[in-house]
Amino acid sequence: MLPLNPALLSGEDYLFARIAAAAAAEQLRCPHRPVLSLGIGDVTRPIAPVASEAMRTAAAELASEGGQRGYGPAAGYPFLQRAIAARYDGLPCPVTPAEITVTPGSKEAIGALFSLWDCQVPVWVCDPAYPAYRAAAEAAGHPVFSLPCREKDGFLPRPEAVTQPGLIVLCTPNNPTGAAMDLPEMTCWVRFAGESGSLLLVDTAYAAFLTGEALPRSIFAVPGADRCAVEIGSFSKSDGFTGVRCGWVVLPEKTGCGAAWRCRLGSHSNGVSYPVQRAAEAALSPTGLRQRQQALAVYRQNAENMLHAFRQMGLTCAARRPGCEAPYLWVRCPDEQGSWYWFHRLLRECGVVCAPGAGFGTMGEHWLRFTAFGDPRTTAEALRRMTRLFPAKA
Amino acid sequence: MLPLNPALLSGEDYLFARIAAAAAAEQLRCPHRPVLSLGIGDVTRPIAPVASEAMRTAAAELASEGGQRGYGPAAGYPFLQRAIAARYDGLPCPVTPAEITVTPGSKEAIGALFSLWDCQVPVWVCDPAYPAYRAAAEAAGHPVFSLPCREKDGFLPRPEAVTQPGLIVLCTPNNPTGAAMDLPEMTCWVRFAGESGSLLLVDTAYAAFLTGEALPRSIFAVPGADRCAVEIGSFSKSDGFTGVRCGWVVLPEKTGCGAAWRCRLGSHSNGVSYPVQRAAEAALSPTGLRQRQQALAVYRQNAENMLHAFRQMGLTCAARRPGCEAPYLWVRCPDEQGSWYWFHRLLRECGVVCAPGAGFGTMGEHWLRFTAFGDPRTTAEALRRMTRLFPAKA
Repeated sequence: MLPLNPALLSGEDYLFARIAAAAAAEQLRCPHRPVLSLGIGDVTRPIAPVASEAMRTAAAELASEGGQRGYGPAAGYPFLQRAIAARYDGLPCPVTPAEITVTPGSKEAIGALFSLWDCQVPVWVCDPAYPAYRAAAEAAGHPVFSLPCREKDGFLPRPEAVTQPGLIVLCTPNNPTGAAMDLPEMTCWVRFAGESGSLLLVDTAYAAFLTGEALPRSIFAVPGADRCAVEIGSFSKSDGFTGVRCGWVVLPEKTGCGAAWRCRLGSHSNGVSYPVQRAAEAALSPTGLRQRQQALAVYRQNAENMLHAFRQMGLTCAARRPGCEAPYLWVRCPDEQGSWYWFHRLLRECGVVCAPGAGFGTMGEHWLRFTAFGDPRTTAEALRRMTRLFPAKA
Repeated sequence: MLPLNPALLSGEDYLFARIAAAAAAEQLRCPHRPVLSLGIGDVTRPIAPVASEAMRTAAAELASEGGQRGYGPAAGYPFLQRAIAARYDGLPCPVTPAEITVTPGSKEAIGALFSLWDCQVPVWVCDPAYPAYRAAAEAAGHPVFSLPCREKDGFLPRPEAVTQPGLIVLCTPNNPTGAAMDLPEMTCWVRFAGESGSLLLVDTAYAAFLTGEALPRSIFAVPGADRCAVEIGSFSKSDGFTGVRCGWVVLPEKTGCGAAWRCRLGSHSNGVSYPVQRAAEAALSPTGLRQRQQALAVYRQNAENMLHAFRQMGLTCAARRPGCEAPYLWVRCPDEQGSWYWFHRLLRECGVVCAPGAGFGTMGEHWLRFTAFGDPRTTAEALRRMTRLFPAKA
C-alpha cells in the first residue's frame, strides 16, 4: 500500500466527531432522556428570510434559458466581492473587492491557506484554539508550535512566545475562550509581524458578537496590517450559514502572496455555488443585516442566561471584556479532575454535552466550553439539569 | 517575506485563465465581432427544473423554524450518499453509501485527494490531460510523471509506462482527447495497480457521454477495482452543475485509506451546501435523469455537427469509439505549426476560441480541443466562420 500522509494517521478522531460519538452512545444508554447539546458550536436559528429568498431566485434563474450560468470566477462573483469589501469601508487599511476570495467557509479556507507557503514555514497556533488550525497545518506538512494563552493574560497569546518567524493564527473573539483583542493588542501583533517577517492569519468568525468600538472586528483596523495579515471571515455564525457554507478571505496585495494564491485557486477551485453567493450578498444587504440581529439577540440572551446560571452554580467563568458577547462560555472545572472527566460526568449525570477544554489544546485542560448557539428552551433545560449537579449556593 | 509553496510560483497562469485573457483581448481589439467560445468546456443549458425546485424548497426550509439545519455531515448527507451509491448498483464491485463523499466538484476533490498520501508518493498523469491534475499534485508536493497517450494507441495511456508504484490518474472518456477505455483496458489497469501496489484515481466527469455497454462508466465495473481504485464523479457536465458545484468521491474501504480520509475531512471540510445536496439528489431521481437527457442531446448534436463540419473543412479529428459521444473534439492542427499558433490564428481570423493542445501537456502539441458544450447557434456560427479559413473541400 502507498504510504499515507503521516499527519492523518494519528488514529484520533477530530474533537467534534469524538464528542458526537459520546453523545450518541449516551442517548443509546439512556433512551428516554434526550441528550442536550451545549457542545458543538452549531447555530439553531433559521437563516434570514432575505437570504433564503435570494437563494430561491438564483436557483430559479439557473433553470431558465436566460438565467443559466456555468463556472463562476474562482475567487467569487464581483457582486459578492464588492459587498464584502464594503464591510471594511472606513478602516485604516482599505480592502478592495479584488483582494476578497469567496470561500465555502473558514475551515476550508484555512486548509487552503496553509498550502500557500512552503511546508517548512512554522505555524504558530494558540493553545487553546479551534482544533482544525493545528490539524490542517500538520496535514499540509508544517511544523506547528503552540502559543500559550494563559488565564493571567486574559487568555490572549503574547508575541514574546514566538521565537521564529512564521504563520501566526489568531482568532478574535477566540474560540473556545471568548477572549477578544483590543486595538493596542492587535497593534502589538501587527508591529511584531512586520518586524519579524511573520504573517498573521486572523480568523474573525465570531466578530458579529463584538459591540461598541473598543474591540476591533478586523485586523485591518490596525494601520500597516495589509502588509502582514490575511483575514478569514465567515457567514456561519453571523448569519446561520453553517449548512449553507460561505465565507471569505481577505488577502491584501501588499502581502506579496496574491499571485501564488490566484495560481492555487485556478487549479484547486471553481468557486462557490452561485445561489449560495446570492444568499450571502442578500445577508449583507441592509435588510439582511437587520434580519440577522434577531438570531444574534437569541444567542446573546442565551449567553447571558448561561453566565448567570453558572455563577449561581458556583462555577467560575472566564472574564468577558465589555463589548465582547462571545457565543462561548469558558468555565473552569469545579475541582482538580480533568475536562474529559467533567465532560463524561455532565453527559452521564445530566445528559448535557459540553466541549472539554483539553480538546482545544493542553492549556485548555481543566476548562469546559459551553456554546450559546443552542435553542433557548434546550439551553434552559440543560441549565436546569446542571443545577441538580451543582446546587445553587445560598 | 515567508517562502511560498514553490509549485505556485511558476508565474504561468492556469490554462483556462490564459485562454480567457486572450479571448478578452481579442474582443477589445475587434469590438464589433463577438468572440465565440468553443474553448473552455463550460455548459450552456439550464439545470433540470426538478433540481432547481429541490434547491428552492431546501432554501425555504433553512429559513423556517422547523426546517433549519446547521452543519451537515462532512462526507455528505445520507440521502445523497444513498442516491449516488445506487448508481453503482449491479456492478461487480458493490459501492456502499458510507464509501461516498459528497464534494463541491472534481477539481476540489482531486486537490483534497492528493494530500491524503505522503508527498513523496509519485503521481502519474496522462499527457495530454486536464491541467489541474498536474498542478494540484505538484502543489501538494508530489513528484509528477507523464503517461504519454499516443495517437497510435488511440490516445490511451499504457501501464508499461509506469516505472514505479504511485497514484495513477485516469479519465474516461478523456479530456481533452475524448478517448474512452473499454472493459479489457480497464481490467488491464486494475490488474497492474493491484500487482504493482499502485492506486488508480479515476475521473468520470464525462461518463454521461458514454452509451451502450462496451465502454464502462465506472472503474468498479472491473472485479477487484475496490482494492486499488478511487473514483471521482461530478454533476457538472451531466447535469449542468458547473456553477452549482457538486460531485462525489468513491473511496472503497478495501483500499485501506478510509480512516485517513475521514481524519482529513473532519479537519478540512464541513460538507457541501445543503440546498446543493438536495438539488443533486433531485438530479438523480427518475425525473431528473429524464430531464438531463434534454441538455445531453443538445451537446451530442453539437458534437455531431462539429465532427461533420470539421471533416468538410478537411481537418482530421481523433477517432471516436462507438458508444463514446465525448463532448470534446480533438482536432489535428492543419500544418506543422503549433497549437498556440492555431489558437491565436483562429481567434484573430475567425473570432473563435478553442483550447490549444499544448496546454494539456507536451503530447497535446499539434492538436486543438473544441468543446461541444456551447450554445447550438453559437456553435453553428463558429463553424461558419471557420469555413472561411478552411474552405470546404470539393
